[in-house]
Amino acid sequence: MKRTVTLLLVAAFSIPSIRAQSPVKPITPAWTQVAPGVWKTTVGQAESITLLKAAGGQPAHSALKALPEIPFPLDPKEIEARTYDWKTSLRFPLGENEDIYGLGVDFASLRRNGTVFELHVDHWNRRAPTPGRTHAPVPLYVSTKGFAVLFDTPRYLKVNVGVGIRRAATVKPTPVDRTTRTIRPTKAGEEPVKATWVSRPPSDSVEVLANTLGMDVYVFAGPTPLDAVSRYNLFCGGGALPPKWGLGFMNRLKTAYSAADALADVATFREHGIPLDILGLEPGWMDHAYPCSYVWDPTRFPDPKGFLNELTRQGVRANLWINPYVGPPHTPLQPKLAPYSGSHLVWHGVVPDYTLQEPRKIFQEHFRQHVLAPDPVAVAGFKIDEVDGYDASLWPDMAIFPSGQHAEVLRQTYGLLVQHMIHDLYRERDQRTMGQIRGTNAGASPYPFVIYNDNYDFGEYITAVVNSGFVGVLWSPEVRGSNDPMDMLRRVQAVCFSPLALYNGWASEQKLWTHQEVADHIRDAIKLRLRLIPYFYSSFAQYHFQGTPVIRPMPLAVDMVKVEAKPSPATGALDATHNPYEVPAAVREVKDQYFFGDSLLVAPIAPADKTRKVVLPAGKWYDFYTGKLAGENTTIEVTPPLSQIPVFVKEGALIPMLAEDRPHAPAKGEILPLEIRHYGTAPSQAKIYDDDGETFAFERGEYSWTTLRVTRGADGKLRGEIIPDANGRTWSYSKIDWKFMTQP
Amino acid sequence: MKRTVTLLLVAAFSIPSIRAQSPVKPITPAWTQVAPGVWKTTVGQAESITLLKAAGGQPAHSALKALPEIPFPLDPKEIEARTYDWKTSLRFPLGENEDIYGLGVDFASLRRNGTVFELHVDHWNRRAPTPGRTHAPVPLYVSTKGFAVLFDTPRYLKVNVGVGIRRAATVKPTPVDRTTRTIRPTKAGEEPVKATWVSRPPSDSVEVLANTLGMDVYVFAGPTPLDAVSRYNLFCGGGALPPKWGLGFMNRLKTAYSAADALADVATFREHGIPLDILGLEPGWMDHAYPCSYVWDPTRFPDPKGFLNELTRQGVRANLWINPYVGPPHTPLQPKLAPYSGSHLVWHGVVPDYTLQEPRKIFQEHFRQHVLAPDPVAVAGFKIDEVDGYDASLWPDMAIFPSGQHAEVLRQTYGLLVQHMIHDLYRERDQRTMGQIRGTNAGASPYPFVIYNDNYDFGEYITAVVNSGFVGVLWSPEVRGSNDPMDMLRRVQAVCFSPLALYNGWASEQKLWTHQEVADHIRDAIKLRLRLIPYFYSSFAQYHFQGTPVIRPMPLAVDMVKVEAKPSPATGALDATHNPYEVPAAVREVKDQYFFGDSLLVAPIAPADKTRKVVLPAGKWYDFYTGKLAGENTTIEVTPPLSQIPVFVKEGALIPMLAEDRPHAPAKGEILPLEIRHYGTAPSQAKIYDDDGETFAFERGEYSWTTLRVTRGADGKLRGEIIPDANGRTWSYSKIDWKFMTQP
Repeated sequence: MKRTVTLLLVAAFSIPSIRAQSPVKPITPAWTQVAPGVWKTTVGQAESITLLKAAGGQPAHSALKALPEIPFPLDPKEIEARTYDWKTSLRFPLGENEDIYGLGVDFASLRRNGTVFELHVDHWNRRAPTPGRTHAPVPLYVSTKGFAVLFDTPRYLKVNVGVGIRRAATVKPTPVDRTTRTIRPTKAGEEPVKATWVSRPPSDSVEVLANTLGMDVYVFAGPTPLDAVSRYNLFCGGGALPPKWGLGFMNRLKTAYSAADALADVATFREHGIPLDILGLEPGWMDHAYPCSYVWDPTRFPDPKGFLNELTRQGVRANLWINPYVGPPHTPLQPKLAPYSGSHLVWHGVVPDYTLQEPRKIFQEHFRQHVLAPDPVAVAGFKIDEVDGYDASLWPDMAIFPSGQHAEVLRQTYGLLVQHMIHDLYRERDQRTMGQIRGTNAGASPYPFVIYNDNYDFGEYITAVVNSGFVGVLWSPEVRGSNDPMDMLRRVQAVCFSPLALYNGWASEQKLWTHQEVADHIRDAIKLRLRLIPYFYSSFAQYHFQGTPVIRPMPLAVDMVKVEAKPSPATGALDATHNPYEVPAAVREVKDQYFFGDSLLVAPIAPADKTRKVVLPAGKWYDFYTGKLAGENTTIEVTPPLSQIPVFVKEGALIPMLAEDRPHAPAKGEILPLEIRHYGTAPSQAKIYDDDGETFAFERGEYSWTTLRVTRGADGKLRGEIIPDANGRTWSYSKIDWKFMTQP
Repeated sequence: MKRTVTLLLVAAFSIPSIRAQSPVKPITPAWTQVAPGVWKTTVGQAESITLLKAAGGQPAHSALKALPEIPFPLDPKEIEARTYDWKTSLRFPLGENEDIYGLGVDFASLRRNGTVFELHVDHWNRRAPTPGRTHAPVPLYVSTKGFAVLFDTPRYLKVNVGVGIRRAATVKPTPVDRTTRTIRPTKAGEEPVKATWVSRPPSDSVEVLANTLGMDVYVFAGPTPLDAVSRYNLFCGGGALPPKWGLGFMNRLKTAYSAADALADVATFREHGIPLDILGLEPGWMDHAYPCSYVWDPTRFPDPKGFLNELTRQGVRANLWINPYVGPPHTPLQPKLAPYSGSHLVWHGVVPDYTLQEPRKIFQEHFRQHVLAPDPVAVAGFKIDEVDGYDASLWPDMAIFPSGQHAEVLRQTYGLLVQHMIHDLYRERDQRTMGQIRGTNAGASPYPFVIYNDNYDFGEYITAVVNSGFVGVLWSPEVRGSNDPMDMLRRVQAVCFSPLALYNGWASEQKLWTHQEVADHIRDAIKLRLRLIPYFYSSFAQYHFQGTPVIRPMPLAVDMVKVEAKPSPATGALDATHNPYEVPAAVREVKDQYFFGDSLLVAPIAPADKTRKVVLPAGKWYDFYTGKLAGENTTIEVTPPLSQIPVFVKEGALIPMLAEDRPHAPAKGEILPLEIRHYGTAPSQAKIYDDDGETFAFERGEYSWTTLRVTRGADGKLRGEIIPDANGRTWSYSKIDWKFMTQP
């Protein structure tokens, strides 16, 4: 078949000066409903690999069925597609009051309108940021009109969001003479009209283009933007549900640590009373790194099994650093993978073409036998590094791969392929994992791998946390050592309210207890993280079962406000694409605070700051620590003490927490006392999720949703009750202590 | 034919999952000599438009014949090409001591090794610079092995310069374990060897890739890198020879100036004794700008003919600002060009598809009849703005053009197409022009349009001057108003030693005489510029007739040093691609000084600096102003007085200058006294060029090369003589005054 293709291609292209037929005619794509509220079209030729295929998730059909039935959320006649030569482009309508979010994990801003992107897996370059060049350049955009669109292409994708006026637009801005700042008369007797000259007027379109013969596109309906993101996550397979221990605390060690050093570090954590669940071993666990041998180093880890046993006894699991670049040639895996690898080395190692099944099998077999084998329960996860770039640190676009897939396709999908490959090793063991990844893409929602990078700007880190919530990925603002105690403290507090709480000490001299003046606060922040596991875990369960992101950006999480249609300044006509609801202006670009789950509004404070503003949306908001009313639909200024990161709780929220401090997350089978906090004065209800916390039994129905209910009794006092899951399944909590934080 | 193509394409692509045949096999291109020292190959399918075709120059065959015969400067077996699907890539060898320059006008650095570029016409983004994204991203690289390579493609081009190790490389760096910083033993009994871990080892290749079905590639032989650049310039048609008045001084006016304001400005120049040749009229000469009507504004310019007559009487010519975006719809040219325009507006105007002949004819006819017509001699040039970007300010990649050419192709060639179109208007009048352009590309060498941009960093501006010399374009570090007198002074001094000396006052309050404390120095700098016209003009003539760039970067201009072959640290073998000559380390990355012509070494001083270092290459160098010896093969530190920009002159140099200050450049037919300066102590010889300074008669042989010779007489004194051109043609100079600056 391939040879036939080649011949036909040769025949077709023996005619010189190939160019797009003139003029290129757009087509109106036809949409097929593929799940409730999810439609698909294929423009041109389907690609053999797409992002969703590389990720490999299966849509959570029953969960999707549980969402409201809803019609196609756009006017299909407004959507155009073009294929010509090797280019595929689409146009979606964009209304005057329509805000666009998403399009990957950006570190600079939230709102996407007015920018041109090239979605391209790369390490975010903070000295010279290029829109779209980032670790997770997910080609999903979220519209405040209440839908999301995914361009499921493994290609670099140009996206113009409201930039570039089409001549075919029905409403175009009126030209203004820049010299006189007037609209010039077009007929005799007219006068010039004073006007503002706008250098970059908004366009009526979101337009995309890739060098490809075709692409799959999906539309996810709402009705709200949060619903649309939830449908996307469910369509990818539902969000990741990490093991309970994954929501504990991770410490990554210095790279040259031996087993003895590692165990000493664990002991010191225990001595200092700092919870610890995961010990991160850096490249030094291997006998060669950069490139990687994936062989335990005999000098530093002479007895991996013994070492791992001891970790388990301490209630700690190992997370091993790797990158996918294999070598040197004398190491056992390299000769097996080299024949399946690309034309160029990366980090001096071969780059296996994991679009092919054979190298995946070779990798997995080696990992079963040599890496996990000493203790497959204790080796509980991986940190997968350097799957992103920079350009000079990854294979060039010129590289050739044995599958015939283009280098560009490998780049856009490599993180997904490796996550999938490694996750399968845990799935086959019925053991959940928690890991880290530096490059990923659409379809990643089910994978419990959290993104990180080499940069370290606090503000950018928090913006990335926020943006991850739009596109079904997880970002952690990891902490590293610093001579500045406030830097370590405020960052630890922030990371404890993010998907993965970790200290990355791979290259740091400092420990979490180095700075005496803040050591207690640091420890307390981590302890609070552990105590909040029942709440965080329920939030992740919502992510899995309902698709609602764990981290909710303010524009997604707050109620929309109703707006009247305004006549266009250019024509006076009402905008036919008027969006009757919009995100309140106060939160449209709020990138330094976010929701964790339904009820907690987190506003991390930067190390250099003593005070910060917090935007409190509509409704009453209460201080997490004191239960006092903080405000309602307003912006407040807070001066948090060293012991606190600003966190606010919505009216009526029920926050389940472990009643006591723990040295690590609840283990499978542990039964622990629970504290349930109620905030505010209103009666309310919430569900708390539970399962065995470690295996995939929850996929086989072994989980519970237990209802927590607070009512006001005849005596005017609030009282709480538990209504167990009807099927009486897993419930890991013993005595329940109700705390009415605002009104006892 | 197009329909057949479509059918074949459809037939060919009805098979799903098209991907590159696996594996993709490289071919070894065959090279055809197309001129002395110039070879060409076509990989895959030739494009219907290339950069050289868009520029439209014809190789200067006789001039090329005058250069030394020289064999193909690489091992052809080392060059690989691949075409697969819609991708074309090439690989050229890169040696260990081989430095690469060129690849467009970069503002940050000179040497290209170790970087990944995407050559893509754009406005340089100084807040987030992306290598290759620049106004003139010329896909020509210059190798210190003494050759240059041009990838004549109208596509965005990825270029990896020594980045990305190929597995096929015969010499590869040995992997070093990053944890232990050792080369690990590969056999029993071996010991680890301490080694340096290198994150980004240099590769053995220059690799390029474009999304295209094929491309033309040219190799230009040396023997020196400067010769290779000269061959490139000659192959493009020879460098631009501007009119003499183009080397005078340009002042650009505030945009809303009327004819009366403009004439008042000219009068003030004359009152202040500041030379002036060109008056730049900004968008306000038109009755609509952004988009452009190309119609003289009746309010500000009620009598264009009268106004232009007066300019001519003052010895001044007009240069009109335009951008190519036409409108609004009620203006005369827009309805004619709209049918030939692209799908998107730029600056609210239509974008004519100037790859087609018809819109070019329409544009030219309108310009003849309405723009030039009041006085086609006085309207002597154009400033062509905004042909480059940013992305959000140009048509999107999704735009469709009536020719069927892709938007990407239009972007890469638009500046060339518009220069060509406008230059033809002057050629048909037998009248040379001088202009400005903000985006251009390969093939631009014959066009007298000088690049500029909106940024204003002094250091970046000078680096751009330097880099322009590698790739056959001209850059001017224009001056704008400032409250800081030193800023204006030092910038004026620098711009007077660049291809186009101008003050851009379009948005400035200040005039050149605003700051009393430096007004005299500013005037004197401009006067010196005028006096040096005979020298600058001869340098431009070398550019035209011999291809040697006017601005010569230090790496091109200095003598190479001989180097011995060194055994490779990895293998011990001698590098078969050893370059026996290399650029002296001291000048390899010297980006803040350059040669103007053969003899002047210019080292502009930044406004904020009082002193600067100057690298003086091999040989003796003399102070331009005093004739004193400044140094030899060394770095000196200078503290230039306010009155001087540091300029050094090489041993024996002969610098022809006008003997007297002039209010404007020499007019056609003017005979003026000449001063010839000799520097140093050595007898020497040089040629000075002359012609009528205004028309294309020089192309018909009406020019002279007059020899200047200095010898030492029996009395030990130096004396000069003139040996007129054998054919006794144009000679515009009367009495000759010899000045022996060093040794009278």
